[in-house]
Amino acid sequence: MKTLKVALLGCGNVGAQVARILLEDASVLADRAGAKLELTGIAVRNVATQRDGQIPAELFTTDSAALVDDADIVIELLGGLEPAGELIGRALSRGASVITGNKALLAARGAELSALAFANDAQLRYEAAVAGAIPILRPISDSLSGDRITKVMGIVNGTTNFILDAMDTTGAQFDDVLAEAQALGYAEADPTADVEGHDAAAKAAILASLAFHTDFALENVYCEGISKITAGDVAAAKDAGMVIKLLAIAERGENGIGVRVHPTLLPRTHPLAAVHGAFNAVFVEAENAGELMFYGRGAGGSPTASAVLGDTVAVARRVVSGGPLPAIATQQSVQVMDFAQAATSYAIGLRVSDEPGVLASIASIFATNGVSIEALRQTVNRDSAPAVAELRIVTHRSTESALSATVAAVAELAAVQEVISVLRVEGN
Amino acid sequence: MKTLKVALLGCGNVGAQVARILLEDASVLADRAGAKLELTGIAVRNVATQRDGQIPAELFTTDSAALVDDADIVIELLGGLEPAGELIGRALSRGASVITGNKALLAARGAELSALAFANDAQLRYEAAVAGAIPILRPISDSLSGDRITKVMGIVNGTTNFILDAMDTTGAQFDDVLAEAQALGYAEADPTADVEGHDAAAKAAILASLAFHTDFALENVYCEGISKITAGDVAAAKDAGMVIKLLAIAERGENGIGVRVHPTLLPRTHPLAAVHGAFNAVFVEAENAGELMFYGRGAGGSPTASAVLGDTVAVARRVVSGGPLPAIATQQSVQVMDFAQAATSYAIGLRVSDEPGVLASIASIFATNGVSIEALRQTVNRDSAPAVAELRIVTHRSTESALSATVAAVAELAAVQEVISVLRVEGN
Ligand SMILES: NC(=O)c1ccc[n+]([C@@H]2O[C@H](COP(=O)([O-])OP(=O)(O)OC[C@H]3O[C@@H](n4cnc5c(N)ncnc54)[C@H](OP(=O)(O)O)[C@@H]3O)[C@@H](O)[C@H]2O)c1
Ligand SMILES: NC(=O)c1ccc[n+]([C@@H]2O[C@H](COP(=O)([O-])OP(=O)(O)OC[C@H]3O[C@@H](n4cnc5c(N)ncnc54)[C@H](OP(=O)(O)O)[C@@H]3O)[C@@H](O)[C@H]2O)c1
Repeated sequence: MKTLKVALLGCGNVGAQVARILLEDASVLADRAGAKLELTGIAVRNVATQRDGQIPAELFTTDSAALVDDADIVIELLGGLEPAGELIGRALSRGASVITGNKALLAARGAELSALAFANDAQLRYEAAVAGAIPILRPISDSLSGDRITKVMGIVNGTTNFILDAMDTTGAQFDDVLAEAQALGYAEADPTADVEGHDAAAKAAILASLAFHTDFALENVYCEGISKITAGDVAAAKDAGMVIKLLAIAERGENGIGVRVHPTLLPRTHPLAAVHGAFNAVFVEAENAGELMFYGRGAGGSPTASAVLGDTVAVARRVVSGGPLPAIATQQSVQVMDFAQAATSYAIGLRVSDEPGVLASIASIFATNGVSIEALRQTVNRDSAPAVAELRIVTHRSTESALSATVAAVAELAAVQEVISVLRVEGN
Repeated sequence: MKTLKVALLGCGNVGAQVARILLEDASVLADRAGAKLELTGIAVRNVATQRDGQIPAELFTTDSAALVDDADIVIELLGGLEPAGELIGRALSRGASVITGNKALLAARGAELSALAFANDAQLRYEAAVAGAIPILRPISDSLSGDRITKVMGIVNGTTNFILDAMDTTGAQFDDVLAEAQALGYAEADPTADVEGHDAAAKAAILASLAFHTDFALENVYCEGISKITAGDVAAAKDAGMVIKLLAIAERGENGIGVRVHPTLLPRTHPLAAVHGAFNAVFVEAENAGELMFYGRGAGGSPTASAVLGDTVAVARRVVSGGPLPAIATQQSVQVMDFAQAATSYAIGLRVSDEPGVLASIASIFATNGVSIEALRQTVNRDSAPAVAELRIVTHRSTESALSATVAAVAELAAVQEVISVLRVEGN
């Protein structure tokens, strides 16, 4: 049986588990891959760090370039743009294949690196980069290759799902739940990348590129995080039989491909509404297959390592036997949908003075802008003087541009005290 | 670009949709496959039947053998053991690759046909055979190839899920819901194969073989259908926060691999509990990945055709470029778990006379057999004379043999009027 040299870059949360499995399960992996996978070294920043005692100390090195130059397969689990990008480029240029979980790098340079892999007859796989353990990239690009995907909606960030789920369950405010999530290790000390949707946006760009056989640039992803979601928004959603989730949405419409990340109202009966805690799930709509959903752990050392090893076995099988490269994503040039043309329905919360004619003037602004109202609920608080009413409006499908013009005009009305929230609605 | 000759066997629910997509989407499929897929003919029983007018009449033939002998790729959608088995064998023996959705044939002869494919360097793929449109076989055998699957639990029969879901929603009896399902086309005139679990058992054998890299014979699948489930069982489950689903369960334990199909109580919070109507879903537990679930349409012409075409593109790519064959299932010999040793927890319903000491004698029989009681609820009906009580007992994990000995002994007690139901419980 052939032996393939495997270089591991990084021995953190994920890398340490990949090393453990490569060592512990060597014979099973060899059976499945058709080749022995020999771990030749592990690149880290600091060789002196005390680590899991099961990994032989002589494997650790800081000379990542030398490791890469001697490998058949490189597993990159450093994170960050550099030196990860340079090392992956170095490996692919030599014809070595690469497995990575680095969504930030892929969202920035995925098309370029895929092309480099293709040009060198090397493989580049990254199942772990989106939704951790969940097999989602291969099903999208392989299993659904005989179909046409029309829409992908994913809960792809565990931190924000944990926070929103806890807000839904406990009724607590965002800041309190975030602090709890940080204490439990579900959120980082600097939670910006998760909470503001940047992590989800990178994954959305990767999903869109594979689902629509194109190269969708990160800068074209509309991105809005969850830090402005209040306990009041969550309670109002609950009243309406809905739940708020941060979704990464990629869809193909008449005007091209639109990709957006934002807090979204979903009916509680939607399969994505049942995704709790830090779990992830990706909902896919395809012309023939209809609705599909893939559910599982989106992060964590061992779950993510499972996806990395699945890719490693696939890569090894092809290194041994040759055969077709995975389809390369950038087959079609992309027409990016102008975000102003994206269409969905909206839930709008307004605080208004409880005086005659307010409802009529609001409704007429909606009508003038061509935004049709599906449902409206008014709650009057007569204890405050003068009396105040809270309006919750749900619209039919309308474009972003029509909606924002409507909200801007409504906000100008003297009787409108506050626009409490504007949330997009899916699945209804 | 190379052209591959594709022979389609069958033009029924699924075959007609496969033909439509091959003709309508020819250029997209060619892009993805790296070869033109030329539909050379469609074998049917009766050429004269009036069919979808979009398919050129000259494609239809009754000479399936001639069609097979001229093809690079054969798509078998006839159903049944013969002539499907003979035609698949004929194709593989010539080195032509085969895509099929025929679970009955695969459960009976899958290992033999896989070996034949392997020996002839041909491919045999059958994603459509289990859970229709849901990509489940490739994720199990490819994406999870670097992991160890410990358990698979699937709702893999849409008819029975439709019936159980309707019983749960409406409180109606089995017979009434079955009649409605037949009227709506969700159940066949002869519903035996679905309702008695035979269809699910075939899929369970296929899932177990792939998940555990072995050849699990259909005759070793324990199979129990849903025809004895009453409205009372459904209501009692509801009271306990549970729902009844027909599950196909494959698990690896200390005593080997056990595969069983039976009605199962699941907590309403379990992801499988949210699978409604005729939808399917497969829940997978793996050592590193943890819990995963795959959800979608389990049947229907277009959804099933999506899976067939996904396989067809994969097969074509390898025919064009060579490369590794899909892993062959029978790598390890199988140790079949004796069903008597399978362990789960149980929910037992008993009708007993409301007299002193009954509970004590029942509890002592459980204790003697080593079956430990987790929960017990007694409802006394004093309107009947003499008074009657209904006991609902949930046990801790116990083996089938201990449980059946317990139930037999309990049934012997003079005070026990009826064993209302014995149901297995998962996910609690
Ligand atoms: N964690 C997850 O659940 C998860 C899930 C999906 C995808 N991912 C992705 O997987 C990748 C790794 O994540 P992680 O959580 O395992 O990261 P981590 O815990 O921060 O580990 C990073 C590792 O890389 C090493 N490293 C960093 N910079 C280096 C450099 N310049 N030269 C050599 N070694 C260097 C570190 O060495 P030292 O140990 O010496 O500091 C450490 O071992 C990231 O791209 C991440 O986005 C992670
Ligand atoms: N239906 C689903 O949703 C579904 C889902 C998953 C898997 N599957 C599997 O897919 C397969 C096909 O199912 P289906 O529902 O499409 O079946 P179907 O509607 O009964 O169609 C069967 C087709 O095969 C042809 N045929 C049958 N025996 C033949 C013979 N001896 N020679 C030539 N042609 C013959 C029939 O010809 P005529 O038209 O002339 O009668 C018909 O076109 C089965 O294995 C089934 O288990 C089906």
